[in-house]
Amino acid sequence: MRMTKRWRVRRLSADGGVRERADVLAGEEPLEIHVAGRSYAVTMRTPGHDVELAAGFLVSEGVLGAADDVLVMDDRAGVTPAGERDRNVLDVRLAPGVPLPDGSRQRHVYTTSSCGVCGTASIEAVRTVSRFDPAADDVSVPLSTLLGLPARLRSQQEVFGRTGGVHAAALLELDPGRPAADAEGTLVCVREDVGRHNAVDKVVGWALLAGRLPLRRTVLQVSGRASFELVQKAAMAGIPVLSAVSAPSALAVELGEELGVTVVGFNRGDALNVYSRADRVVP
Amino acid sequence: MRMTKRWRVRRLSADGGVRERADVLAGEEPLEIHVAGRSYAVTMRTPGHDVELAAGFLVSEGVLGAADDVLVMDDRAGVTPAGERDRNVLDVRLAPGVPLPDGSRQRHVYTTSSCGVCGTASIEAVRTVSRFDPAADDVSVPLSTLLGLPARLRSQQEVFGRTGGVHAAALLELDPGRPAADAEGTLVCVREDVGRHNAVDKVVGWALLAGRLPLRRTVLQVSGRASFELVQKAAMAGIPVLSAVSAPSALAVELGEELGVTVVGFNRGDALNVYSRADRVVP
Repeated sequence: MRMTKRWRVRRLSADGGVRERADVLAGEEPLEIHVAGRSYAVTMRTPGHDVELAAGFLVSEGVLGAADDVLVMDDRAGVTPAGERDRNVLDVRLAPGVPLPDGSRQRHVYTTSSCGVCGTASIEAVRTVSRFDPAADDVSVPLSTLLGLPARLRSQQEVFGRTGGVHAAALLELDPGRPAADAEGTLVCVREDVGRHNAVDKVVGWALLAGRLPLRRTVLQVSGRASFELVQKAAMAGIPVLSAVSAPSALAVELGEELGVTVVGFNRGDALNVYSRADRVVP
Repeated sequence: MRMTKRWRVRRLSADGGVRERADVLAGEEPLEIHVAGRSYAVTMRTPGHDVELAAGFLVSEGVLGAADDVLVMDDRAGVTPAGERDRNVLDVRLAPGVPLPDGSRQRHVYTTSSCGVCGTASIEAVRTVSRFDPAADDVSVPLSTLLGLPARLRSQQEVFGRTGGVHAAALLELDPGRPAADAEGTLVCVREDVGRHNAVDKVVGWALLAGRLPLRRTVLQVSGRASFELVQKAAMAGIPVLSAVSAPSALAVELGEELGVTVVGFNRGDALNVYSRADRVVP
């Protein structure tokens, strides 16, 4: 179980070059998340920050909303076929009074009956389980701060630098004491993973465990595209602005519009697109 | 339910430019896959080629292995909250004699008991359910053919051209009549989706329904990274070579090594890396 792994690779070039060399690969292992001793979900993730990953995932699912909701997280349940302990099973024990997840309803957030599996129902399901209201956040983000985020994220991507193979998510907190016009903000958390959704879960889980939810006056910067799932995760954590380096999907933008999350796409440093709640971005 | 959707967007530039304009977004909607009338999985996908998507997904799960395994696929079960029929539920009826999937074992391919959720167990689980043996495929692929694949894939990406927001997968069939040394091959199927795994499922589903499984003497080219899941999907369809534009994960490469799938990464047109079964790539 490693964040990276060395592997012998053959590199072939169009000009006829053939070299054998050692390459560094991003780690990928399944993590089974248990809630109160019962298997709840399995995700393929890059090992590391697993407690944060499980915590953030359960925020997205509507199971957790505050650090106090967690009694203990136990990673001792996992055992390899050879009988050795691994770290690939994490059991989350909920504090007394915290309701157990209703498997069928909350498991995928969108409904799973044959009635209503459509975009509208998916958006409605997120609205129903969300504890926080990102729409009410009156934060203003300077355009220059947003445009600078991808470079700041990239400069802190340790695993990417070595493997070229992971996604990243970073949380920017805007300085409350400074006028919005020149707020550079502070990158308070950067996480990497082979899965985009996992990187975001790790950031949100970090915030939950640090007692920072809801994440008012923040921007979540992600390295890839903005899917429905990422906007959902932002909304569930109370994040008002989601910025992606690549394109958002139609449903991601519709969800942002409905829940009041500013969705920024194609943020390439010199220009960007704002798809929803554009009032928050100050040129 | 559309492959793309128009949306009004505000474009802001570092030089102070602000423009409102119409943008085209990639469609994203949930598809609920039923097997024999019971809900089996929900995936967020770009609508289109849904029958292929469900078929390919069930090949990856070990439920389907030949076109004859399917009796009928019925998309009439989905109804919106407003009572209108949508196309977001697809019921797959299996032919007589085809075993129903065992939910707990096959649902995620990797085991979900607290014993054995590790990379080794994940690889073993794929080996157990796989019907085909990609390791036995003695195909040779010219390096020049491999290097040319990303450009050929890109030139056929219709939705990407308009949205910049989707992944793609393409299946190359090597010409059986030509010597390996100058085999250009034929792109027999290209599919796009907001989800990388869905694009691959659509290609594999197309092949299943066309009676082409196992996919001997083929190369699967994907637009993004090579995850464990993609190598698994290739192996389950009998595809001997998987080529990715970006990095593979450690577990993807280990699975390729174990099952005899050639894993190619960082295929950027002028050079590429071969991580497993490098013997199939002819410089």
